[in-house]
Amino acid sequence: MSLFQASGVITLTTDFGNRGPYLAVMKGMILKGFPEARMIDLTHDTFVHWTAEAAFWLERSFRFFPSGTVHLAVVDPGGGDVIAVVREGHVFLGPDNGLLAAVVDQFRGTDVYLVESARVGTVGVSGLSQNFRGRDFFAPLAAELAAGRVRPDKLGPKLREIVPSAVPEAEVDSKQAIGTVISTDPFGNLITNIGKRLVERFEHPEVTAGGRSFPVNVSYADVAPGEFTALINSFGTLEIARAQQSAADSLSLGRGAPVTVKERAPSR
Amino acid sequence: MSLFQASGVITLTTDFGNRGPYLAVMKGMILKGFPEARMIDLTHDTFVHWTAEAAFWLERSFRFFPSGTVHLAVVDPGGGDVIAVVREGHVFLGPDNGLLAAVVDQFRGTDVYLVESARVGTVGVSGLSQNFRGRDFFAPLAAELAAGRVRPDKLGPKLREIVPSAVPEAEVDSKQAIGTVISTDPFGNLITNIGKRLVERFEHPEVTAGGRSFPVNVSYADVAPGEFTALINSFGTLEIARAQQSAADSLSLGRGAPVTVKERAPSR
Amino acid sequence: MSLFQASGVITLTTDFGNRGPYLAVMKGMILKGFPEARMIDLTHDTFVHWTAEAAFWLERSFRFFPSGTVHLAVVDPGGGDVIAVVREGHVFLGPDNGLLAAVVDQFRGTDVYLVESARVGTVGVSGLSQNFRGRDFFAPLAAELAAGRVRPDKLGPKLREIVPSAVPEAEVDSKQAIGTVISTDPFGNLITNIGKRLVERFEHPEVTAGGRSFPVNVSYADVAPGEFTALINSFGTLEIARAQQSAADSLSLGRGAPVTVKERAPSR
Repeated sequence: MSLFQASGVITLTTDFGNRGPYLAVMKGMILKGFPEARMIDLTHDTFVHWTAEAAFWLERSFRFFPSGTVHLAVVDPGGGDVIAVVREGHVFLGPDNGLLAAVVDQFRGTDVYLVESARVGTVGVSGLSQNFRGRDFFAPLAAELAAGRVRPDKLGPKLREIVPSAVPEAEVDSKQAIGTVISTDPFGNLITNIGKRLVERFEHPEVTAGGRSFPVNVSYADVAPGEFTALINSFGTLEIARAQQSAADSLSLGRGAPVTVKERAPSR
Repeated sequence: MSLFQASGVITLTTDFGNRGPYLAVMKGMILKGFPEARMIDLTHDTFVHWTAEAAFWLERSFRFFPSGTVHLAVVDPGGGDVIAVVREGHVFLGPDNGLLAAVVDQFRGTDVYLVESARVGTVGVSGLSQNFRGRDFFAPLAAELAAGRVRPDKLGPKLREIVPSAVPEAEVDSKQAIGTVISTDPFGNLITNIGKRLVERFEHPEVTAGGRSFPVNVSYADVAPGEFTALINSFGTLEIARAQQSAADSLSLGRGAPVTVKERAPSR
Repeated sequence: MSLFQASGVITLTTDFGNRGPYLAVMKGMILKGFPEARMIDLTHDTFVHWTAEAAFWLERSFRFFPSGTVHLAVVDPGGGDVIAVVREGHVFLGPDNGLLAAVVDQFRGTDVYLVESARVGTVGVSGLSQNFRGRDFFAPLAAELAAGRVRPDKLGPKLREIVPSAVPEAEVDSKQAIGTVISTDPFGNLITNIGKRLVERFEHPEVTAGGRSFPVNVSYADVAPGEFTALINSFGTLEIARAQQSAADSLSLGRGAPVTVKERAPSR
């Protein structure tokens, strides 16, 4: 079993936007259960009801938090089962709707537990609310986990299968790698789910998106202002950028757009 | 007198938006006075200069925070008197401009105190600033209260009357309940001030807004994607939603729109 | 040398916007190094790639935080040297690209140190990342400083010169003061870099911007709703406001717009 030693840190990921008291009451409920909790907002501006973006950021970000962190993720349009994933000393708590699939897929040695509300009741968490489980179920349970008062492996039976990701992982064959734009950042950069290792399979990788092709450079500074470039970003995935401008606006591309990497044709 | 035992938690509600350093310097001043303060942003995106929305969220959210929380509310276009409200072990601090009226109205057993700056001076809070009392007066005073260094009943005389809410409470007669859209959430749901108990007076409640009528269901999942529904939301008030779409955009309704509940006409 | 006694408080200023996990992973890295850090977001919505706005808010806000605060500022389009500024018991950490020039300029008695990564390595901070130094370099270093494990004067040699501000400070001659709109607040007020003392040089100051002139009043309440006014705001600089409306929208002015103060012509 993966070990989890609670550090008292909780990250929060939702699709609630940075407004309204929805997030605040979740934090209030965490403080009620665990006054010493240190809470960090991971992201709340992922595309509403689309689990792929939150899933991507969770999987790419968790290792920058202390070991023993509880990552609470509530992008939960349909309700359904709740799962807890233990990976490399971190716990991820969220619905079984694809949101945590990327965390599980990309690492052998994760353990996944079904959260049975019956057992949760015995650690002081009230029953399921019909309309806001983020506040009424997830938050109190995150507090229990972060306080070290309940172990993830005590929440319910181990699962062998969970709901897969909403967007498939990037695929590669001998000719090309195909992936998807998962997010755009505040600078208009297009962030894909094509990992560094897939790009490195090509000697002279050329990236195609929206009918245009781009070379892969090392950093933003490698091209002049206004020029397009592709690069491996600081989260280890391929990104299409336009120096000091918005690639998303310029190319009219956004979440879900397909992106291809292949070997650059030799110049004549 | 209502008892208040400081827990060290402070919530912040303003109309400053989630930007700029306005909020940050309020938090800085709180930390100057009380380094151990744990601060939670309740909401800062309520409609500018309109106290009704912030008032609604305060009254509906406070019970999800630990007993002993100080709720600091600064939606303060006109200045004027400052009051402290003690209710169910929580303190609310804000201007006497209607912002705290909902907190007082809906519960017998609240105590309201006028905050006299003369007395406040004796607990280490500097005088009133002319342009930013959130930072220069409210924040240091919230720190004093949250640190347990001043008791709310020592701030000034008890008040019997305060400025009423900007939007009247929902009204009901034998035929119908009439209320108001107070807020829209990030999903475009229209949130009204019509409480659960008013809706429950009707055997087959039918909700009318913007010239259309909607049935009352139990949860979002009770209707197909694209269909409208009304329901009692997780804060205990009536809400008009459109499954997986924005009711606000679809109906072109927003804050201040009137909403009616009456008995559904029997179908022929 | 200016004294710095770490208080454990860190403020964060970036141009990342209030979304995405960029900010979150910086905070995660701070907690990894210093679990007791108390972090406050100063502002993340300053104009992208324009250092003048973040610079202004830093210089105007820092004194509202506890002495011993580390102010981490990452508006860093071009990379380059990193500096630490010690002023009045606070430390400012950021790139040497003009971002910290206002903090240095406006106070004799600041000390500026070049941050040499070689020395930083010896206090447990990893080397420079090519694409995200906010997370990989600035955040761990801020944690070291806030924890009191490294003194700013041990980071590298003292500097006598740094890159100047992107926008010049307001200038004054015998006839007029000339400054710039640096920011707009959520209410649409136009905030300039013309300080209180420059305005006070004129007996009857008159403010001109966008082809219109405005009197200087004491507070927003001095004019009727809809009227324009200029005033010294709560951060000590000249601001152009329209009571209960947006001056920015009404005048179609924003960041970078020139503003002039001169003696009002005597009325006939």
